[in-house]
Parts: sequence; structure tokens; C-alpha cells
Amino acid sequence: MSTTRIAGTGLTRFGVHEGRSGRDLFAEAGLAALADAGISPEAIEEVYYGNFIGELAEEQGHQGPLMADAIGVAAPTRRLEGACASSGLAVRDAVRAIEAGQTDVAVVGGMERLTNMGTTAVTGGLATAADAVYEGQAGVTFPGAYALMARAYIEAYGGSKTDLAHIAVKNHANAAANPDAHYQHEITVEEALEAPIVASPLGLYDACPISDGAAALVLVSERFAESHGLEAPTAITGSGAGSDRLALQDRASMTYTPATESAATEAYAAAGITSQDVDLAEVHDCFTIAEVLALESLGFIERGEGMGLARDGVTTRGGRLPVNLSGGLKAKGHPVGATGAAQVVAVARLLAGTHPNASAVPNARVGLAHNAGGTVATATVHIVEVIE
Amino acid sequence: MSTTRIAGTGLTRFGVHEGRSGRDLFAEAGLAALADAGISPEAIEEVYYGNFIGELAEEQGHQGPLMADAIGVAAPTRRLEGACASSGLAVRDAVRAIEAGQTDVAVVGGMERLTNMGTTAVTGGLATAADAVYEGQAGVTFPGAYALMARAYIEAYGGSKTDLAHIAVKNHANAAANPDAHYQHEITVEEALEAPIVASPLGLYDACPISDGAAALVLVSERFAESHGLEAPTAITGSGAGSDRLALQDRASMTYTPATESAATEAYAAAGITSQDVDLAEVHDCFTIAEVLALESLGFIERGEGMGLARDGVTTRGGRLPVNLSGGLKAKGHPVGATGAAQVVAVARLLAGTHPNASAVPNARVGLAHNAGGTVATATVHIVEVIE
Repeated sequence: MSTTRIAGTGLTRFGVHEGRSGRDLFAEAGLAALADAGISPEAIEEVYYGNFIGELAEEQGHQGPLMADAIGVAAPTRRLEGACASSGLAVRDAVRAIEAGQTDVAVVGGMERLTNMGTTAVTGGLATAADAVYEGQAGVTFPGAYALMARAYIEAYGGSKTDLAHIAVKNHANAAANPDAHYQHEITVEEALEAPIVASPLGLYDACPISDGAAALVLVSERFAESHGLEAPTAITGSGAGSDRLALQDRASMTYTPATESAATEAYAAAGITSQDVDLAEVHDCFTIAEVLALESLGFIERGEGMGLARDGVTTRGGRLPVNLSGGLKAKGHPVGATGAAQVVAVARLLAGTHPNASAVPNARVGLAHNAGGTVATATVHIVEVIE
Repeated sequence: MSTTRIAGTGLTRFGVHEGRSGRDLFAEAGLAALADAGISPEAIEEVYYGNFIGELAEEQGHQGPLMADAIGVAAPTRRLEGACASSGLAVRDAVRAIEAGQTDVAVVGGMERLTNMGTTAVTGGLATAADAVYEGQAGVTFPGAYALMARAYIEAYGGSKTDLAHIAVKNHANAAANPDAHYQHEITVEEALEAPIVASPLGLYDACPISDGAAALVLVSERFAESHGLEAPTAITGSGAGSDRLALQDRASMTYTPATESAATEAYAAAGITSQDVDLAEVHDCFTIAEVLALESLGFIERGEGMGLARDGVTTRGGRLPVNLSGGLKAKGHPVGATGAAQVVAVARLLAGTHPNASAVPNARVGLAHNAGGTVATATVHIVEVIE
């Protein structure tokens, strides 16, 4: 089995890109990743591309060949879709092809353009990640679905809106130092608590923004990295995926996410590590409660014990396990199809010392990226390590 | 490398499924494939699912976990999208995972629901497979795009509307004996020539219908087939994929499809065969001219020589290379996301002797399935062989 090396990374800033098309966004990120890797488009053998609702946002399906063409690549391509986990799935399947020796060099990434749609259309579009018949037609949108999970969690285990506010405060503080983030301002616990309620108990600052953006990586086999003398200081040493029933009502529990646990178990085993070996993590915090559920399902803490980790400084910059140093979906932004790839970009840059917040984790060797779709009916986990 | 065996196949009838949902259609096909394989849903390790425009047709994205759940499967899942080649891509990536030993047993399939959308919305939805900016906004829909290719082909190489009519007549004749086909009536050359023009030179009978439907396969590793004593009389011995620039205007030629050629070259090499070893083929005939382009790009005949193959009886039942014995997209129907998987189902059943038209090819050992997206910006080719 060949280890998958990260040869290059590229991002657009996440935020509102008025007047720019999806292909323009992906071209920026993809060409940046190729330049970072020092690899020409002609060398690329496969493209794994994630996008969620391009048909709705830009009347553009079939984006695989479009995005490959936008960066000058003529290789076979496919679009992966798993709602907000679309480009986590793209990373996943690219890593498998490289590990198998089927591909030596791939572009992996994702893009979403949302702010051009208008708020009502975006909310409706994002809701297509839920069960259209049993959730969507009953009026469930994602703030509501995650509010149900937050209420169930608090009822089962306790915790407060203040605990959740600390997660938002932490992620805003991290994003404030990240020029690629959608939001670059800090907030206080008081501001979070006083913000308008979106879906009780979740307020405005418990929710991630609607963002445009793109992310890309150049992934290569160890053999390719060595034969081409590439600087590729990090590797994806473990990959895992998990699924769950789509509709919340069909789940055994609303306070735990088994898809994440399955993905993590597989990824840890592949990397030969446990959760305790992880030095930093980017987790899927589309809402503050989602960060709590993720940290528990990833095995960083027991079930029911995750609510206070930001409040207690465990997951803050300087804590034992810094989480979402990029700012997370919460403050870095959430251009849906780009998110999973962007998380891996952030982890790679944090470990390589090239991320604006890398100074917070000078000795980190092992990072984790966790991407989730819908109310975690799809999850991927990737372990990134510094090459010795 | 493990060979990929086809352990089970399942189809809905293709056609108008009024009042049935996408999950209902995929459940029918997926459960039929599991029953055919004699495998329980709990044994499935991965799901590769193809769908093109579920967000537009049913306001349903994130269909991977939904469709897995519909057949009782809890395994990791992803949706592959490459327009009309969506489930060809699903077959492709499943085969790679099985060949690599990463997966021993996978459900692969696809579904599309279209007839509920209404004709205008379907035409617009399908047009999202083209370049939205440079084609869609200029009014290009797929009948128009393929008409441009037909005109360019006829200008370059000759051929007539009568030649194209013979392709439609052949595929209708094949579908007439296939109870799963959308159309089950024969047509004459005269009827095809007298039909209303859709986009000159293409008339009504040059175009495939708008269909609902689903298709599924259970693919297993050789090891799994043997250890479970499965009857799996056919194997996918070669897989290939190719891409091209999305917009027709960006192509070097409108009379040839290099994405198909790349996919075929890769698939033949993997199977250790040439085009001359193929006994039957299911090719992507969304329009009659597409069958001509496919047969040439697949290497069955020289460029510019494919127009008369149906007219001359080469590709008809009883000919040297029967093509689209299922009826093809043209007459079997084209529920977009299901088509690529359904082609592999048809080839497997024809080779195994379980297809209604299998009596036409009693000695066939090697079949080919060719799936294309858009104006062949995406293509996949799979070689299916009878196990000795």
C-alpha cells in the first residue's frame, strides 16, 4: 500500500464572491494547489471533485469535466456528492485509488457557490440534504434539525447555551487570524448569548454562514513524490467513511453520530493510532452543537462529556487539543462542496507550519479532519501526519 | 488484483412510473439485485450510487444514504455524478475498490426520476449537463447539441437520415422483446423518416425518451464469490474512464469522441483484449448519431465508416456485432442516473443467458458497456466476460 502524500494545497478566501462563477472559484484554488505542488496540469491522472447543489445554484451539473478544464486538466474526473461531506468523499476515494496504486497523482477538491442564490433559495437548497419526504415536506431545515439534536443532547446530558457560546467564541477567535476566513472578527460570550434565536436553543452565532469558495489539493503517491523530488511534508495516513439513515426520525439516537464513529474507527486503524495521538483537529461545526457531537463520536471524550471542552480551554488555541484553528465552518465559512477538502488543507498547513495559526501548534505531528453531510448521515475522517 | 464478479442484477422497468418516488424505484432494483445474488443487506460493505438531477426532480440531494437505507444497507455510500454517465462512474469506482481489495462486496447502481418534472423542466434540467454559461445560456439543449454533431459528421463523412433511421429501427426491434424497456413496439424506416423534426437532421425517432427507472448490481471480489459459494457467472475484467472539455465549442472535433476512446483503450488493456474480441455491446445511444460516434471511438470501425453498420446488418440481431440488444437508450429508455448500471446489467444478462434477447447471442463470451455524459465530456467503458 502506498502512502498518500499532500504535494500542494489551494484555497480561495471563503465568503461572498459576488459576480464570480463556480469555475472561476475552483480555478483559483486548483491552480494554486498545482503551483504549490510544482506539478503541471498535464501530469494529473485523475480528478475527484465535490459539489453539492450546483444544479440549483448555477444551473450547472456535470461539473467534473468543467472544473478539470478550468485548471487545464484532461484526466478522468467524477463529481462526488454527499451533501456537506461531498469533498470529504472526494478525498476519501482519491486516497483509496492512490493507496491501491491505481493513481499516482490526483487533483482533489470542491466548490460551492451559494450567496448568489438568495437566502430563501439557499435554505431550501441546503434542505435537499435532508429526507425530502419525511423531513423537508414537514418543514425541517438544517437549523431546525440541529436544534432538535441540541435539545435532545441537553435534555440527556445537560450543558447550556453558554457552553455552546464558548465554541462560537473560540472559532471566531481562530478565524480572526486567518485571512482566508469568511469572518475575521472576534465575538464575546455575551454577544453570542444576546444574538437572535434562529431555532431554539441555537442563536445566530451558533450557526455557520452561507459562503462561496473552493478548495483543492494535489495528492500523490509516495513513489511519485520521491521520483519527482517533490516537497510533500505531510501524508494522509488514514481514511475512513461512515453512513447513517438519512432522516433523524429513523435514528436510534439524536445525541450521537455513529457515522462519525465508524469513519474514525476506520481511519485510526489505518493510521495505526488512537484518538489520543491526535494533536489538532478540524471538525464539522456547521452549528456549535455539531462540534460537541463530533468530538464525542471521534473518541476524544466520553459521550455526554463534550459540551464544556471549549469553555474549559481544552479545545482552544493553547489547549490540549486545539479544534478548528482555521475558524471552522462556524467562522471560516461553509461553501458546502469545498468544506471537506478545505479541512484537509487546513490540517496540512497547520502541520507544515504554513497556516496563519500554525504558531499555536509548533510541535503538532498528527492532525484529523472530520467532514459530515446532513445531520451526519455521511461522515469522513482523515488522519494527516508530518512525514518523518 | 482481484477480478470483480457480478453476483446479482436488478432493474425496474424503464418508463413512466407515475406516483412512485426515487427511493421506491431504487429499492425495487436494489432489493432485486440482492435477492439475485443471495446476499443480505448486512453483508454489503460499500454503496456506489449514480444520480444526475435529484435536487431538481425531487428536491432530494444526499441520495447515497437514502438509497442505501431503502435497501437496508448501512455501509458507507457516495453519489457519483457525471451527467448521463453517473452510474457508469459508480461502476468504475466500485470495480477499482474491489480490484484493490479495499471492498469485497458492493451495491452499485443508479436511479433517475424525470417524468414527474414536466417536459420543459426536464429539458432544462438535462441541459445542466452542458456548459451553463457558454452553451446553456446560448440556448443549447441536448437535441440541439447532438444535431450539431450529426451535421458535422455528415458534412465530413457523408451518411444520411436513412442510415440513422436504421439505428432507431434496430433498437426498437430489440426493445420490443424486452419487457423492461420503455418502448415495446417496432418502427419502420419510413416511420422514422416521416417523424417530426426535433433538431435537424434529428427527428423524433432519433431521440431517446424521457424515462424513470433504476438499476443495481451486486459486485463482489473473486475471493468473496468463492468463499460464499456464489453463482456469479460473469466478471468485469476491464474498466476505463475518459474526460473531455465540457463545451462542444472547445473541442478539437465534433465528429469524434476522445473520452470514449480513452476509456476504451484503458478497458481493453485491463481485460487483455482488443475491440475485435467483443461479441456484443451496449453503447450510449441517447440519439442515433451517438451510436455511430460510439462505435467508431470504441474502435469497432474506422472513423467515418460507422454510419451504415445498422443499415448493413452488422449491429443488428444476428449481425457480426449486435449492438444495444436491450433496446439501448433509444428504445429501452434513459433514466439518466440508472443508464450506466443498466447497460452493465444488460450485458451480464445477455452473456449469462438470462436476458430476453440472449437467444440472439448464444455463443457470446465478451461484452462491452459504454456510458457517456453530456456530449461525451465523460465516458466509461466496462468489459464483461463469462467466467470459464
